[in-house]
Amino acid sequence: MNPVSLEKKTAERRGSEPPMPVNEFEAAIRAVGPERYHDLHPFHHLLHGGKLNKGQVQAWALNRYCYQAAVPRKDAALISRVHDRELRREWTHRILDHDGQPPNEPGGIERWLILTDGLGLDREYVVSRRGALPATVFAVESYVTFVREQPLTVAVASSLTELFAPKIHKERISGMLENYPGFIDEKVMAYFKRRLTQAPRDADFALDYVLKNAKTREEQEACVDAVRFKCNVLWVQLDALYHAYVNGNVPPGAFRPET
Amino acid sequence: MNPVSLEKKTAERRGSEPPMPVNEFEAAIRAVGPERYHDLHPFHHLLHGGKLNKGQVQAWALNRYCYQAAVPRKDAALISRVHDRELRREWTHRILDHDGQPPNEPGGIERWLILTDGLGLDREYVVSRRGALPATVFAVESYVTFVREQPLTVAVASSLTELFAPKIHKERISGMLENYPGFIDEKVMAYFKRRLTQAPRDADFALDYVLKNAKTREEQEACVDAVRFKCNVLWVQLDALYHAYVNGNVPPGAFRPET
Repeated sequence: MNPVSLEKKTAERRGSEPPMPVNEFEAAIRAVGPERYHDLHPFHHLLHGGKLNKGQVQAWALNRYCYQAAVPRKDAALISRVHDRELRREWTHRILDHDGQPPNEPGGIERWLILTDGLGLDREYVVSRRGALPATVFAVESYVTFVREQPLTVAVASSLTELFAPKIHKERISGMLENYPGFIDEKVMAYFKRRLTQAPRDADFALDYVLKNAKTREEQEACVDAVRFKCNVLWVQLDALYHAYVNGNVPPGAFRPET
Repeated sequence: MNPVSLEKKTAERRGSEPPMPVNEFEAAIRAVGPERYHDLHPFHHLLHGGKLNKGQVQAWALNRYCYQAAVPRKDAALISRVHDRELRREWTHRILDHDGQPPNEPGGIERWLILTDGLGLDREYVVSRRGALPATVFAVESYVTFVREQPLTVAVASSLTELFAPKIHKERISGMLENYPGFIDEKVMAYFKRRLTQAPRDADFALDYVLKNAKTREEQEACVDAVRFKCNVLWVQLDALYHAYVNGNVPPGAFRPET
């Protein structure tokens, strides 16, 4: 079913239809990936296909840092709403995955900064987000707000783009290692390697939670919409990168690669 | 200085005075304990002095569970607002202290439930909060909201009642073990023993953070007020317990001990 007819059907049914059987609900969630996940975006193809120069890869890593840095705040926003101790215990490891755990686990954000270090970006500048595209910052902060404000099951559902992540991470690892020998090596790709095991575990748990807890048709549709929303958060970031650093319309104040 | 004159002086100065020297600021924070901390409350004296019956101790443990269960949500609400990764890394262990960490660390809430188990309360009933006093629930949820909404330094400051906690925990451990041999033993007091080491570590970090980050007089006063607010959160709970279970005015729907 193409996206338009699925959404039309969704709108017609909303509020009146009985809940979807669980396999149909799961299929509707999984169908969002092939329609909207950012592995379909032209910027992704340029990135993993080796078509970008170092400055463009720097811009991508710098902007994507904003997303990485928002993830533990997003997960904490979710935990702050959860009365079920078991769900909190499961979800807290996501914060630890990204922020690490003293004294010995550096965490995913640190691994991302190893990537931006490797690309020759100043770490303080990256962390400050001063050079990030405003569209990036708005998108990732909208994600934090969504998780803070939407019904809990819908907030959990917004994490389900992780169902589609292993494919894009594998493409990035092989494509970037192959195509950017001058500035990408195994060491700086550590982030993506770790995510190959973390993302599927998290996605399985969240999918199971959503399938069990979205009970009405309306809740189910809101969960599918949450996956679409999250795809939009990711897509907007690549659109902004494309417009600024491929088409050459860098907005005032944003990072400008050395020429 | 007594509370009235301190508060009057505070009001006069607010907004116009230069910041307090750091030692004066720290002294103002520490002065809140002897004025307002709930170790001054008559219910605390009855509790650790062995003057309560089992039903009254049950009511205390059942209501205090609501506070314990809110703490990791409060800490997650704080983390969800923090852009400084080092502060998040430090604060996340508070969630782990209360919720534990799979597979082997049960956490403080589980230790609290061992206390309520030991008191003969049904665990599902305790966790449901159905029998809790509404005043308890309102107070603890106000704490979560305060931390979610106040300026970050002020939100951190609201945790500083931990400066005063070791004394009350020591009094509880010795007083309750001594005075309630029929239903309190070493095992069920495990929660308080663990907090004797956790609370001072956390309080030292938070105090240092507040002393460094509250820069204007107004911010400093807001931090001192945050400690007063938090004392109110704790005090309200003991007032409600006293009114319901000492004076015998149990509100509709609340826990009623077996007679």
